[in-house]
Amino acid sequence: MRVVLVEPKNEGNVGAVARAMKNFDVHDLVLVNPCALGPEARQRAMHGADILESATVVPDLTSAIQDADLIIGTSGIDTSNEKRFARIAVRPSDLAIKLGKARGTTALLFGREDFGLLEEELLRCDLLVTIPAAKPYPILNLSHAATVLLYELFNARAPTRPSRTMSGLEKEKLHSAFADLLDATDYPPHKIGRTRIMFRRMMGRAVPSGWEFHALMGVLQRATKRIRRLEGKR
Amino acid sequence: MRVVLVEPKNEGNVGAVARAMKNFDVHDLVLVNPCALGPEARQRAMHGADILESATVVPDLTSAIQDADLIIGTSGIDTSNEKRFARIAVRPSDLAIKLGKARGTTALLFGREDFGLLEEELLRCDLLVTIPAAKPYPILNLSHAATVLLYELFNARAPTRPSRTMSGLEKEKLHSAFADLLDATDYPPHKIGRTRIMFRRMMGRAVPSGWEFHALMGVLQRATKRIRRLEGKR
Repeated sequence: MRVVLVEPKNEGNVGAVARAMKNFDVHDLVLVNPCALGPEARQRAMHGADILESATVVPDLTSAIQDADLIIGTSGIDTSNEKRFARIAVRPSDLAIKLGKARGTTALLFGREDFGLLEEELLRCDLLVTIPAAKPYPILNLSHAATVLLYELFNARAPTRPSRTMSGLEKEKLHSAFADLLDATDYPPHKIGRTRIMFRRMMGRAVPSGWEFHALMGVLQRATKRIRRLEGKR
Repeated sequence: MRVVLVEPKNEGNVGAVARAMKNFDVHDLVLVNPCALGPEARQRAMHGADILESATVVPDLTSAIQDADLIIGTSGIDTSNEKRFARIAVRPSDLAIKLGKARGTTALLFGREDFGLLEEELLRCDLLVTIPAAKPYPILNLSHAATVLLYELFNARAPTRPSRTMSGLEKEKLHSAFADLLDATDYPPHKIGRTRIMFRRMMGRAVPSGWEFHALMGVLQRATKRIRRLEGKR
């Protein structure tokens, strides 16, 4: 994955893009005819300073993309006019799905802060992507736009974290413990069914971890036992 | 939706967050004990300057969240250790799905540029969210993190599914009822704190409806009353 900034005018933005690249594990930065890069760029890059320093500076777009296998353009202006096909764009999440399958070098192009990518630059792209945003002001800051796209692409590449959720057996134990507590409290019989389902649905949404299962089981069983023991003493 | 920046130190970041909010149609900005806001903040806000100007400045976190129904914390540090539940977080896309159902005021908290949210601030959150990022440098710039979350939430905000979720007042009643039950069961005092937080986080993930709130409250209160009544009879 390569990030290409076309004629960026603000060095702070360039630094911020380098930081976002570091955050999302993308290291190949190409700058087409950029502004001068000074202390502000380095300061904004933070731990992405190495990406900024190893960035390639080229004089024109052709040099930036000639060895790329897939060229993705970003545009702040979407259109639903089918005839303006040069401006028809996909969503970042769709792009992430599409690129999940792509091999080779993908170049992700970002235009100027004020004018974006020019029409002739857009025409050289294989695919356009637009970040959905509010109608009154849909134009994101350059590094913000880069962050959203790099985030989506990272998300699509990253394996999901394996964490132990409550097992099916534990789940049934929990629901059984909940039923025991209802019983111990003399819960109105006609309400038991729907209250148990309520609890089941809520737990389904919460997706408790193994540890949370044990903690919650402890609370339910404790309450039931307490009631039963006190009843025994009557 | 409210964005709360806790002790931001860089005015440029505050301005950039205001711009991202404008991009994604979120207008309520609250600043807790912020740095001075000058020309750089206004310049970075671009067309989000109105959000910056109408931002509320408060001296502490309590003032920022006391009327919020759901409090979401952001953390750059995720953990897979189940027992460190105060740091267990959901993904932005999962948050977006959960919040699709929520009504009322949701406060989205962002911490300091250097230290993030403090432990005691994280403990006040109903739910934590972490942006997945590359291990060597997972800490995003403040406005980049805000952009990713606001983007996901904007994306998910569909004009469908109006359902009343538990209000902030109901939520606190529920947690108070849970604490009463722990107390009634002579729950080990050294475990009370973390068990209460476990329950708060699980409810944060489950986003109970108003009806579910009432049903669950009923179960908890019934169990507590039963114990107390039986104790009285000893």
